[in-house]
Amino acid sequence: MRLSVFFLPTLKEEPNDAVVISHKLMIRAGMIRKLGSGLYSYLPLGLRVFKKVENIIREEMNKAGAMEFSLPILTPAELWEKSGRWNEFGPEMFRINDRSKHPYALGPTHEEVFTELVRLEINSYKDLPVNFYQIKTKFRDEIRPRFGVMRGREFTMKDAYSFDVDEAGLDVSYSKMREAYKNIFRRCGLDIAIVDADTGAMGGKKSEEFMVVSDIGEEVLVSCPKCGYAANLEKAVAKNNYSKSDEELLPIEKVSTPDVGSIEDLVEFFKTSPEKFIKTIIYIADSNPVAVLIRGDIEINEVKLKNSLKAVELQLADSNTIEKVTGAKVGFAGPVNLKNIKIIADESIKYIVNGITGANETDFHFKNVNYERDFQVDEFFDLSTVKEGDLCINCSSKLEFRRGIEVGHIFKLGTKYTESMEVKFLDKDNAEKHPIMGCYGIGVDRTVAAIIEQSNDKFGIIWPITVAPFEVIVIPVPLKSENARNTAFDIYNGLLKKDYEVLIDDREVSPGFKFKDADLIGIPIKVIVGDKNLKNNKIELKLRKNNESILVDLNNAESEIESLIKKEYSLYE
Amino acid sequence: MRLSVFFLPTLKEEPNDAVVISHKLMIRAGMIRKLGSGLYSYLPLGLRVFKKVENIIREEMNKAGAMEFSLPILTPAELWEKSGRWNEFGPEMFRINDRSKHPYALGPTHEEVFTELVRLEINSYKDLPVNFYQIKTKFRDEIRPRFGVMRGREFTMKDAYSFDVDEAGLDVSYSKMREAYKNIFRRCGLDIAIVDADTGAMGGKKSEEFMVVSDIGEEVLVSCPKCGYAANLEKAVAKNNYSKSDEELLPIEKVSTPDVGSIEDLVEFFKTSPEKFIKTIIYIADSNPVAVLIRGDIEINEVKLKNSLKAVELQLADSNTIEKVTGAKVGFAGPVNLKNIKIIADESIKYIVNGITGANETDFHFKNVNYERDFQVDEFFDLSTVKEGDLCINCSSKLEFRRGIEVGHIFKLGTKYTESMEVKFLDKDNAEKHPIMGCYGIGVDRTVAAIIEQSNDKFGIIWPITVAPFEVIVIPVPLKSENARNTAFDIYNGLLKKDYEVLIDDREVSPGFKFKDADLIGIPIKVIVGDKNLKNNKIELKLRKNNESILVDLNNAESEIESLIKKEYSLYE
Repeated sequence: MRLSVFFLPTLKEEPNDAVVISHKLMIRAGMIRKLGSGLYSYLPLGLRVFKKVENIIREEMNKAGAMEFSLPILTPAELWEKSGRWNEFGPEMFRINDRSKHPYALGPTHEEVFTELVRLEINSYKDLPVNFYQIKTKFRDEIRPRFGVMRGREFTMKDAYSFDVDEAGLDVSYSKMREAYKNIFRRCGLDIAIVDADTGAMGGKKSEEFMVVSDIGEEVLVSCPKCGYAANLEKAVAKNNYSKSDEELLPIEKVSTPDVGSIEDLVEFFKTSPEKFIKTIIYIADSNPVAVLIRGDIEINEVKLKNSLKAVELQLADSNTIEKVTGAKVGFAGPVNLKNIKIIADESIKYIVNGITGANETDFHFKNVNYERDFQVDEFFDLSTVKEGDLCINCSSKLEFRRGIEVGHIFKLGTKYTESMEVKFLDKDNAEKHPIMGCYGIGVDRTVAAIIEQSNDKFGIIWPITVAPFEVIVIPVPLKSENARNTAFDIYNGLLKKDYEVLIDDREVSPGFKFKDADLIGIPIKVIVGDKNLKNNKIELKLRKNNESILVDLNNAESEIESLIKKEYSLYE
Repeated sequence: MRLSVFFLPTLKEEPNDAVVISHKLMIRAGMIRKLGSGLYSYLPLGLRVFKKVENIIREEMNKAGAMEFSLPILTPAELWEKSGRWNEFGPEMFRINDRSKHPYALGPTHEEVFTELVRLEINSYKDLPVNFYQIKTKFRDEIRPRFGVMRGREFTMKDAYSFDVDEAGLDVSYSKMREAYKNIFRRCGLDIAIVDADTGAMGGKKSEEFMVVSDIGEEVLVSCPKCGYAANLEKAVAKNNYSKSDEELLPIEKVSTPDVGSIEDLVEFFKTSPEKFIKTIIYIADSNPVAVLIRGDIEINEVKLKNSLKAVELQLADSNTIEKVTGAKVGFAGPVNLKNIKIIADESIKYIVNGITGANETDFHFKNVNYERDFQVDEFFDLSTVKEGDLCINCSSKLEFRRGIEVGHIFKLGTKYTESMEVKFLDKDNAEKHPIMGCYGIGVDRTVAAIIEQSNDKFGIIWPITVAPFEVIVIPVPLKSENARNTAFDIYNGLLKKDYEVLIDDREVSPGFKFKDADLIGIPIKVIVGDKNLKNNKIELKLRKNNESILVDLNNAESEIESLIKKEYSLYE
């Protein structure tokens, strides 16, 4: 491709509204432009990278035996009603009526549509297992779209759905996808951590996230440096390290605590440590209030809480509800004498001796409160949010925290959808059964952005050759030298003939400008055809990633470039 | 690909709701399934063909110097308001609000978005010309979706937009696209007619449609067998062949015509021919009533009428309006003494001597009515719908009618969008100018369906090899013969290694079933590896399109198949 006729609006300045590196660089390198909140246009350079990633995904999915489909974006409401998700999905699902007022969702994911297809088309164990996928535009009306294409409202997802006759089959399908994902991200040059994750709104039994380690990641990634345990923060568990002090139980005592609000203020007031406090928080779980107790120094993990309560919706109670439930203003809730409400607690509560908690009376707390003697709990769970330095559940080493960008997610769904949508097949034993389902997603746009987050420097993007928009850029220096220009075009045409993806910078701009652009857009190999070197029959090959440069004989130029390209590819095999 | 693990739900029976061959065959061949009205899922076989067509389009667009983009489907209402099309587009445009009540259209086409991109990114004549395209899902809420993917509500369109500094530049861009389209459709194996078309809602000066001749086509294609003139019915003009008889002008006379309604009844009543009648039809053009006169045997071409009136919206007046305008019930309108309304007429009216028309009085007509003596006309136009057998405007040969499926449409838009959306560039002469625009569309799904319409027989689809889902299908007969099976797999693996697209039917079904499926899904070349022929060291190669069959030596099998494949491709070069 001749750069003089390629639309490449690179920018020197950083865009105002971009905060993360990948967003800034995608704008500056002329890969994308913003059309609206969470809506981005891919320009030619960006689309080339996008399609590279898409093709790597497609190749590995096909290799793993999955079959590609393309399903409509407009999905009839009936399907979502059947699975129960028409209501479960909140305002994140874009909904639209057609001219005859028939409601549709703009597919945020396609479990329902693929499950319906299987219901209609597959009847026998002989037709199973299958793994169906598509690479398709998806829509989610994110409350806070941000970071460019990292969290957009319209984005492309590779979504795959496996259907098996039994759990053992699902295990096989799931591990095939796990392997395929490892291959995909390796080929994209990404350094990935695979972590246990919550199954959340998708339902199901097990799920793992493929995370790109990055400071701008929206998820916290908990891992054990010793045994390899890894989970996201929502799912992470730590070793229960609580112990009960042997101090004597003192009589319970009511204390006036006017204007003492936060745990910090209370710690100050009572001159003790946060571990002494029994935090009591009122939630609404599927319209029912519930009191949740946890030790003062630990944060509630709302995902664990939601799962423990088997709740579909969970939110903090508003102040009216709290006053109604506790009889006191916000800040004075506690389990002692708390009536007509379910009380659940984190395991940590069992170990507090002579604790402090709200008295369910405005401006009063109790001290010397003890579980069993002073209050009861309906159920105990692990509701704690793991902290950095907590001990690994497997090997007791100290857990480490990193941040990560979720680029892939694989789920063992089980029969959640095949049951609710009444999908059955006739098994070998002539019994009707529900297929066992798995689902597997990769965010294509986000993968592109994550590659940039992991691979850039102050000059711009550093593409792994596998996903680079072009493998090579040929730069004649200076352009007005006919010799340099002709030689550059000879090399360019030679490489093109062999189907390499080559850009030649034939624009009438200064060499400095060309080098800056080449670095910004991150082409792995620069071929610099300079007047001076040509006098010695040499040209220069330079790697973007480390600036290493070699002079090669003009006569061997093509084969030298080819071997450099091959070497680069071999790094991602 | 092994057919035993490929999802191919072929059907013996014709689907109930399909009326055209392509729709029936796409369902039966397991290419698509219906999800809702005008909404289809592509199954793996269908998607392979779809992608073949898409790639041919992409290759030819790139070859023509166009650059590929990918723009959002959700397009902010502001852009459409700026161009005026937020209102111009009726209920055909899907509209949606996001969670903060911001309105968007699901892009039915992308003039606005590309024009906005050019407004923001292109400032100088040096950056022009450009031709930007995408291959993208589009949405139109068709009032009557039908014929499968031929007229769907969600479909894929290749849409391209050229921007030039002047009209001469547009001419170049337009002819490049015209050539690219010819290449695309030739490579798809389609027999195409290029016809003049109306520019309609897109605006602009000239447009041509690429039509696949087919009985099920929704458009009428008018052509001259002698000189090659071709236009669609909306746009077609014929030679004005009217002549004035030299009979004497008789005095006008009012005649009672109770219960005489249609032109046929009137012809009967007046014992004359339809050519004597001055049909008077009341339209509403952009809220204003207008009376339109045409000879009784000619139909009004509403597209010509709309263009002549420069109207945005045009519809027949309702009976209330007609009564108000004419003072008579419907069926008695006429130009004599018709007041307070614009009167326009087709050229044919000038030639009627002693004509008959409504008297603007219920149950009365005038006879012996003559233009100029008895009524005036504000303006004359050609408002006639061409009839089969009318004379060619160029060479006076008799025009022929065929039906056609529109698969492509190219437009010279001019500055309609660049003016309304305030796009300017600085020209060589330092003057600010609006870029001159062209736009160019191809319906990808419709192209797939049109190929089937043109290429099928009673056994199924006959794919041109260029778009076939697989080039070759290898069929071992019978499967239980180990020799046939192993030899078949050897051939299959040999072809795969050379990157040919091969299917092997290793399903445990009867040979008859396999041959039927192979014919139904239309694979161009069958390689039949049969026990009997193997005894003589032979295998059979059979062409789908004409059933021609040759026996070749097993030792030469691969090279024979390869040369057959090459020969097939050469037909579409």
